[in-house]
Amino acid sequence: MSDHSGVPAAPVPAFEPPYYVAVFSTVRTPEQGGYSETNARMEELVKDVPGFLGMDHAQTPGGLGITVGYFRDADALAEWRSDAEHRAAQKCGRAEWYQSYTLHVAKVERSHGFTRATAG
Amino acid sequence: MSDHSGVPAAPVPAFEPPYYVAVFSTVRTPEQGGYSETNARMEELVKDVPGFLGMDHAQTPGGLGITVGYFRDADALAEWRSDAEHRAAQKCGRAEWYQSYTLHVAKVERSHGFTRATAG
Repeated sequence: MSDHSGVPAAPVPAFEPPYYVAVFSTVRTPEQGGYSETNARMEELVKDVPGFLGMDHAQTPGGLGITVGYFRDADALAEWRSDAEHRAAQKCGRAEWYQSYTLHVAKVERSHGFTRATAG
Repeated sequence: MSDHSGVPAAPVPAFEPPYYVAVFSTVRTPEQGGYSETNARMEELVKDVPGFLGMDHAQTPGGLGITVGYFRDADALAEWRSDAEHRAAQKCGRAEWYQSYTLHVAKVERSHGFTRATAG
């Protein structure tokens, strides 16, 4: 099972630029057989990519899903993009799971984070 | 009311690079008074920024929210960043609504989209 429904303590933090972000936004079809298992597998597999920094995911029920992956450099992204198991999953996504999606790959120029001080 | 819970037809499309993406990922506090109204106002206000291209949002119930704004260039982003009403909203966000957040501003180098052919 994916832990997407868990409450995260915080989003992936800001890193020292430059680094890369891959924004993957999706609308899914009603055909979701195998999606959860494959998604969970991809979440594990990407952690093995050297230069992978982290991943955030949000899913509006019945609506848009956004997954954001963070990578140290273009080489890390290229390795993930060419992973054979990942490519097979992408093919399933186009065949079954996604009504539409958009991928934007971008080089981070600045970033910052905020964490609330513990309530007194 | 925000229309975040509606089912979008598709995410914001891929544009011709270069353009900018601002990824804003949040975990919210239980103190959400005024959030929905301010959020809806910001969604309207940003549309007036020259060079604003679009915005996607996904919210896992009780979990992570991700908002991604797309802008033609750094000037468009700078205008939105310096907007007085937006700055006031950011201040409320840090004071009340957000447990933690991260903002990543990045220049898009490549992008593509997929839309399913109508089922036969």
